[in-house]
Amino acid sequence: MITITGKATLTYDQPPRILEAASIVGQKEGDGPLSHLFDCIEPDPKFGKNTWEEAESELQLRTARKVLEKSGMTEEQIRYLFAGDLLGQSMATSFGLQPFEIPLFGLYGACSTAGEALALAAMTVAAGYADVVGAVTSSHFASAEKQFRFPLEYANQRPLCTTWTVTGAGAFVLGRDRYKTENRCKSGLEKEECTKTQGVQQKECKGEACCDVCITGITPGKIVDYGVRDSMNMGAAMAPAAAACIAAHLEDFSRSPSYYDKIITGDLGAVGREILIELLQQKNIDIGSCHTDCGLEIFDNERQGTGSGGSGCGCAAVTMSAHFLPMMRRGELKRVLFVPTGALLSKISFNEGENVPGIAHAVVLEVLENR
Amino acid sequence: MITITGKATLTYDQPPRILEAASIVGQKEGDGPLSHLFDCIEPDPKFGKNTWEEAESELQLRTARKVLEKSGMTEEQIRYLFAGDLLGQSMATSFGLQPFEIPLFGLYGACSTAGEALALAAMTVAAGYADVVGAVTSSHFASAEKQFRFPLEYANQRPLCTTWTVTGAGAFVLGRDRYKTENRCKSGLEKEECTKTQGVQQKECKGEACCDVCITGITPGKIVDYGVRDSMNMGAAMAPAAAACIAAHLEDFSRSPSYYDKIITGDLGAVGREILIELLQQKNIDIGSCHTDCGLEIFDNERQGTGSGGSGCGCAAVTMSAHFLPMMRRGELKRVLFVPTGALLSKISFNEGENVPGIAHAVVLEVLENR
Repeated sequence: MITITGKATLTYDQPPRILEAASIVGQKEGDGPLSHLFDCIEPDPKFGKNTWEEAESELQLRTARKVLEKSGMTEEQIRYLFAGDLLGQSMATSFGLQPFEIPLFGLYGACSTAGEALALAAMTVAAGYADVVGAVTSSHFASAEKQFRFPLEYANQRPLCTTWTVTGAGAFVLGRDRYKTENRCKSGLEKEECTKTQGVQQKECKGEACCDVCITGITPGKIVDYGVRDSMNMGAAMAPAAAACIAAHLEDFSRSPSYYDKIITGDLGAVGREILIELLQQKNIDIGSCHTDCGLEIFDNERQGTGSGGSGCGCAAVTMSAHFLPMMRRGELKRVLFVPTGALLSKISFNEGENVPGIAHAVVLEVLENR
Repeated sequence: MITITGKATLTYDQPPRILEAASIVGQKEGDGPLSHLFDCIEPDPKFGKNTWEEAESELQLRTARKVLEKSGMTEEQIRYLFAGDLLGQSMATSFGLQPFEIPLFGLYGACSTAGEALALAAMTVAAGYADVVGAVTSSHFASAEKQFRFPLEYANQRPLCTTWTVTGAGAFVLGRDRYKTENRCKSGLEKEECTKTQGVQQKECKGEACCDVCITGITPGKIVDYGVRDSMNMGAAMAPAAAACIAAHLEDFSRSPSYYDKIITGDLGAVGREILIELLQQKNIDIGSCHTDCGLEIFDNERQGTGSGGSGCGCAAVTMSAHFLPMMRRGELKRVLFVPTGALLSKISFNEGENVPGIAHAVVLEVLENR
């Protein structure tokens, strides 16, 4: 059932399905190019709470509830949660997901946590440890600035290479089997959407011809430290880890980048993307034509003043959930390598003059038909 | 191969083995009752480094190297690492394990991280995702005080209910198969130790009659919040989560506490232990006679002035590694329920007046013979 490939890669004979996904973002993300795709745009940056940390907890909670609502599932059906955020001691997760009576595996992979959570969730389902599990990650611009740089009230200036932490949470429900509710076809699409827009050959969805978005493999990454010390330039800090993870993935699978319709990194932004492409070119890997970055998709940097692009745990999670996953469901993308990227810094490590090491985890998403 | 039991519990037909464990502690722990059992006692609280955070990173690195050295394995044989610590953004792990070229799953479960790491490591090996994986956790008294309460220089007074964060790191290597080196018998004991002290029937160790310490099941826990707000009383904050996890575990397995030779919680200390036993008594579960707590084993509270007992990620990890695991290998304990406990607070959540929710993860360790 499980094949171990290469140094780090796993691939599954019975790949777990992404049954549902949800995304909730703040107003700035709601003003960006993906505006119409999110499940909910919250105009109040405090999400009705008193502190930035409570706001992020509330954001994570609402998104977890949203994915349950969309999937028609109950809390009891989710066997385990894999979740994390950027805050010290994963505060948004600890307080946000507390209302759920679901066993929790708390994760910390900085902004790569969405990839780590999907990887472990997929491992758990593919091994038969659970029928259905959830993966949730979040970030919030104000809580992250306060945590890693300066409180907003300080009004510090930001260099152009800086990325902008996304206020957003993404939640995914992964399962072994298709989950059918009254309003959904067997591939999990709303019936209307399915018959109207789905790219695969079919007359009317009875499930047989439907496609599933599955996680067919993962390549967990290792810590990579290229000596970057600038906490304002996260893209440069994370690009080497993304390059190492993508190179390891392609080697482990003996694939070329052209196997994928898209290779999607998490939050490298414009600066990090350039470094990533150059680093991979040095290894004779050309991903230029199929690469994009969630941080470049979510904001219009010029119009929105978001510097190098979006960042944060939430960036990759909401962009995958709201933008790329629906594209896959509609058949517009068939094979995607999703590589959330994280910068392993803390305010203390930065103040003590440490480097900013990076980490990245690769998750293979594929549209599988007629399963 | 895998049986899903009850709401949260997993059990394995081919349970992964704990092939090796290592522990390194600071001087105070080295002066405690378990003094002679640790692999290494480091007299310099800064571990030769300049900051407390660097010290904890160095501690974690040395312990990971120690477990490799003890097992006779190389870095290349470890497929994945599961690791975490208490610091914001898991700094000790991010910087401590960076030298290893091993894919890393970063975890945050507060002081329950040792349980979370062992659980995920066991899941990974039992599913066939890896032949050998590592689990590493650490804590450091000074970095934790600075992170959660006050820097040591402030010299604040500590109420008697306070626990004392253990300066220590524990590392475990889990594997599918016995790993035999020249100096070790097939059950992983050093030859001399094996023939001299092992409790099972045998003349000379040829492997057949040897026992393995295996992880035969896990019960991951959920977040439990009883409204405790005192960051000086971690035992009270964590006891409800431990009680919930132990009760769920016993129910899922239809076991009574007497199934176990010992039920070992992580770091409840004297105050938390009392609450745990009372909470379980309310559910008609009596663990009084078989319960102990790593926080009560590692220090002599009266002599060492450690308040309610030891705490921290490192507390459960080093006490299991140095004390209980060797007892199991010698056949003095056959069945152990290991329940590391965590308090999900951060300095910010405390300062903002939030509660201190708890979490606990249960791991079943059993001595299996003649496998």
